[in-house]
Amino acid sequence: MQTDAGQSIEDNSMAIIESEIGSHPYTEQEWPIVRRVIHSTADFDFARGNGLLFGDDAVASGIKAIRSGCNIVTDVNGIPGLLNKAAIADFSLQTICRISDERVAQMAKSNNTTRARMSMRESAADMNGGILAIGNAPTALLEAISMIQQGGARPALVVGVPVGFVQAAESKDILWQMTDTPRITNQGRKGGSPVAASIVNALLIMARLSG
Amino acid sequence: MQTDAGQSIEDNSMAIIESEIGSHPYTEQEWPIVRRVIHSTADFDFARGNGLLFGDDAVASGIKAIRSGCNIVTDVNGIPGLLNKAAIADFSLQTICRISDERVAQMAKSNNTTRARMSMRESAADMNGGILAIGNAPTALLEAISMIQQGGARPALVVGVPVGFVQAAESKDILWQMTDTPRITNQGRKGGSPVAASIVNALLIMARLSG
Repeated sequence: MQTDAGQSIEDNSMAIIESEIGSHPYTEQEWPIVRRVIHSTADFDFARGNGLLFGDDAVASGIKAIRSGCNIVTDVNGIPGLLNKAAIADFSLQTICRISDERVAQMAKSNNTTRARMSMRESAADMNGGILAIGNAPTALLEAISMIQQGGARPALVVGVPVGFVQAAESKDILWQMTDTPRITNQGRKGGSPVAASIVNALLIMARLSG
Repeated sequence: MQTDAGQSIEDNSMAIIESEIGSHPYTEQEWPIVRRVIHSTADFDFARGNGLLFGDDAVASGIKAIRSGCNIVTDVNGIPGLLNKAAIADFSLQTICRISDERVAQMAKSNNTTRARMSMRESAADMNGGILAIGNAPTALLEAISMIQQGGARPALVVGVPVGFVQAAESKDILWQMTDTPRITNQGRKGGSPVAASIVNALLIMARLSG
């Protein structure tokens, strides 16, 4: 629960971003999401150059899923801790992250792959109709892409913003090409748990306002 | 626990960073910490211009605290989720974050201030001899600074890298001026939970290697 003092700081931050952003390519629905990412990173790159990318139906599909009480599947434990707890409770949403499951660790070891990749395979049923938020591991996003392409998973929205130097940019390029999948992503190496969480938090706020 | 596949990706990432960084101002002890921050953010700004700043004794003091089994106090719940669980267990460290405590919420409301600020006040005893890692809230860092200056808290290391547009840069400037306090910080608006967690994770790895 945000205190008045905390809300005041957030409002001031958003006003500073508005005053510095200048022109940008985002719609009225997209901009509050981009602005929240800038708020959490202090990095205007997410609006410029290699900025956030939105599939046509992504925002609407994400809000609809939230309002139906969907699951939010994440690649790392850091994301649930950053989500708006009051909104999660209001909409009876469940956050699911299997990266630390013992079974996932064993599968990763015996398949000589990453836990992130196996955590996605273990979460296939959980993400159907839900939001899949990937902020860290390109291998998680690549596995989810493969699952979606093969019909093994049908998330209502993929928030794919893994960060890093190995396959992060490439995995996001592939996601962006999946025009049948509601998706929010970005170009380049940057991303992260706060970016993924900010996108979901912005959608949570919009879901509340549209209620 | 990192799988071989995960470790291989991390090794490749570090090699890419090494190949792109060029010259930098950091010592042999500091560079692995900066490199891990770049690894988690894909943002070379943390080594250039407004890069990370290290107090003379900061790295040694942090490693010593870890090896003595210290507390790690954080401003937000997102940081503990990003820390190296195996190392935390090895050194019997305890992570403490009071931002979601009911008592903190009530104190914040009745004092018309932020939960982040009150969570620091509630954690004064916990942070003595420990690591205080602030990745999000400038008000948490400002409160901790005030507590340290008044003798009410004595952390072995302050990792102060709050992010944002309101008081983040200012709070870090003040921390940097506290030459008697072991501290790792940066200049400017950027920072965040992954930055704070990466710094602590790098120290955890160094503490293991020096064992």
